Amino acid sequence: MKKIDVNPPSGTRDFLPEEVKLREAVFATVKKVFESFGFLPLETPAFERLEVLSGKYGEEGEKLIYKILKRGEGKTKGETDLALRYDLTIPLARVVAKYRDKLPTIFKRYQIGPVWRADRPGKGRFREFYQCDVDTVGTSSLLADAEIILAAVKALGELGLKKFEIRLNSRKILDGIMEIYEVPKAVQKKMLISLDKLDKIGVLGVKKEMEERLSKKIIDQIIEEIKNPKARETIRKRLGDSSTGKIGLEEVDEIIKLVKPFLDGSKIIFSPFLARGLDYYTGPIFEFFSENLDSSVAGGGRYDDLIGIFSGRSTSACGISLGVERIISVLSEKTQKPKKNLVVRILVTVWDKSFREDALLIASGIRKGGVNAELYLGEGNISRQIGLASDRMIPYIAIFGPEEKRRKEVKIKNLKTGEEKSVSITDLGNLRLN
Amino acid sequence: MKKIDVNPPSGTRDFLPEEVKLREAVFATVKKVFESFGFLPLETPAFERLEVLSGKYGEEGEKLIYKILKRGEGKTKGETDLALRYDLTIPLARVVAKYRDKLPTIFKRYQIGPVWRADRPGKGRFREFYQCDVDTVGTSSLLADAEIILAAVKALGELGLKKFEIRLNSRKILDGIMEIYEVPKAVQKKMLISLDKLDKIGVLGVKKEMEERLSKKIIDQIIEEIKNPKARETIRKRLGDSSTGKIGLEEVDEIIKLVKPFLDGSKIIFSPFLARGLDYYTGPIFEFFSENLDSSVAGGGRYDDLIGIFSGRSTSACGISLGVERIISVLSEKTQKPKKNLVVRILVTVWDKSFREDALLIASGIRKGGVNAELYLGEGNISRQIGLASDRMIPYIAIFGPEEKRRKEVKIKNLKTGEEKSVSITDLGNLRLN
Repeated sequence: MKKIDVNPPSGTRDFLPEEVKLREAVFATVKKVFESFGFLPLETPAFERLEVLSGKYGEEGEKLIYKILKRGEGKTKGETDLALRYDLTIPLARVVAKYRDKLPTIFKRYQIGPVWRADRPGKGRFREFYQCDVDTVGTSSLLADAEIILAAVKALGELGLKKFEIRLNSRKILDGIMEIYEVPKAVQKKMLISLDKLDKIGVLGVKKEMEERLSKKIIDQIIEEIKNPKARETIRKRLGDSSTGKIGLEEVDEIIKLVKPFLDGSKIIFSPFLARGLDYYTGPIFEFFSENLDSSVAGGGRYDDLIGIFSGRSTSACGISLGVERIISVLSEKTQKPKKNLVVRILVTVWDKSFREDALLIASGIRKGGVNAELYLGEGNISRQIGLASDRMIPYIAIFGPEEKRRKEVKIKNLKTGEEKSVSITDLGNLRLN
Repeated sequence: MKKIDVNPPSGTRDFLPEEVKLREAVFATVKKVFESFGFLPLETPAFERLEVLSGKYGEEGEKLIYKILKRGEGKTKGETDLALRYDLTIPLARVVAKYRDKLPTIFKRYQIGPVWRADRPGKGRFREFYQCDVDTVGTSSLLADAEIILAAVKALGELGLKKFEIRLNSRKILDGIMEIYEVPKAVQKKMLISLDKLDKIGVLGVKKEMEERLSKKIIDQIIEEIKNPKARETIRKRLGDSSTGKIGLEEVDEIIKLVKPFLDGSKIIFSPFLARGLDYYTGPIFEFFSENLDSSVAGGGRYDDLIGIFSGRSTSACGISLGVERIISVLSEKTQKPKKNLVVRILVTVWDKSFREDALLIASGIRKGGVNAELYLGEGNISRQIGLASDRMIPYIAIFGPEEKRRKEVKIKNLKTGEEKSVSITDLGNLRLN
């Protein structure tokens, strides 16, 4: 028989119970923080109609969309009509366009769930990974952007991640910069993409990518200012010459003012060359950089035109996505293996085959009191059953043999201390195990 | 501009906040029950390598697998190498084969998550739907089958669903019946598929489908016995002639004996023609039929050969899947629309633009005490802000204007009673709202 490969598909993962528990705890924490700000949960399908996703993520993103074969015809013709969601933002935009009348005017939503990208898998880079997003739809107030940033600060803080550098920019500032440097319209998009890779490819990488497209003079000036953090102030001044750039600068300053009092050790800085890859941003954009982890742990921005593509009606929106997979991987390195069973406190042993109904009854009785109880799925050889309880880190066992049956009592044994006590069968619902 | 269809793809659904909350409550209940029995959570990827899923679900199922275009080559050649999971059982089998040494000898797992089938969408039939599965792997003990059934009874009961008819059969009994009636080997699989549709197509439908394949004499006899519930006893007797059938009968009787004391108003009956569609069952099979809902709400069985396909080593297993979507749709019809905000207790108003930092501070202070607080994302016109709070069913508002600022106090108003109280800014963390 041909052997089937039992690994999960490349770039995906199986999560065994311990990992599931850790992930669930992380999601629960994030959720609690988001709800404390009044964000509401939303769920959308794993796949969308292909046309919903296409043309929203830029050239690089487009290639990474997983396409699904069309039902029926697909098999012979290779046609596709659906695709796995690539992020949680486009589905939100579609939902807002569809349910506008059912949703509050200002709709604050969070969504935690998997997205899929046909990326080259690598260390910490997956093809299936969770995103945790919060977005506020329906207001252009910068209070919304500030709140989004603070919700992320709070959520990350609750997860034990503190002290980031929040890099803040505005797409309008980038537009202003390109206006000032006279970067031709046709090259601007490519330049954004290059700038977005700054962390990955470095200043020289960006320079190289731009050399093909811009004059040496422009490049040298831009590169000089990217390298020199003090250039920020020069850029600030120069942006005064661009009306778009000026608006962008006001946005950035306003957000800094609103956010600063709540940063709890983190800092927020104006980063005039922060670009963020996705096509749809229109205003403030931001990225949380953790110096401890030497990596970005959250990012987002304002995208005032995206929903209009779906609804035909202009609708402001902004949001942030937590890099929750990176956070989980850091936490799981720090977390020690649990020393107790993940869910169960007691193993109900089975004396022999004729005691199976009794054992079922005892397990059921113990559970009635809210104590999670596992039944031994077999019978006889009590010492082997005790061994199993130890292996599984179950701290108590229940024993019910002929003698106990006569007395209508169950023997409860603490495997660690050896302590034993007898509990009447009718009283099992009151059993409390520390 | 071409208008984009904003509906979710056919057969899928968007879940707005209220629905998400209801669904989460259902999953939490099920999870709690499963854990009380010692089942552990597992998560697997949304898609699997195509070869993992292929050939496991029978002809009908095979057609419903969503195939994903291969990265790179797929675009031009239409090749596929991945497919969305069709159930949670095959992924479990793969996981057990892969992580055998990391998992306990007897591995009891639950998994709650979406699966995808390219089925024709219809009332209550979706292309993306959740399954809630519990399975026990690594033991042939019928205690495991009994426990699986009881875990499902308990979970359904906690969701308010009681009094089902649990229909129980064994694939071995079906094999025995076919042996006795001399159904040719080549036709047996088709017959199982026909029998599985009994609820949908009725006795006459089954008869019609089998007419093409079996002699009139055999058909008439089988149909007679399907129609007549009393035939059960005849079949019981006749199964004595088939060694396989006899073993199947012992399985059924043993499970009935173990399960019966815990049924709490439900009944369990031997259903010799219950077939269950999937290819991989080998022993006891069962289905929970709710008479109130006139539909099946759970089903499962034993599949002792499936894991061996992946691991090359025979491994016993049995499990059940709750029809959780049907259950949720029933509950959501019964559940009244909530009369309070889903997550928030208080709206923090914003007096005017110069008070935005104060409002952020107040919201943050209130949240520190564990009270979920929403910030008004705008400013001025307090009566409009109050109107918003009412619309959103938020019971309290916080007001902080020039007068409050002077006194360093926040005014907290109960919108229902009109009651007001002042709380010192430094004391917001102690605010408790009923």
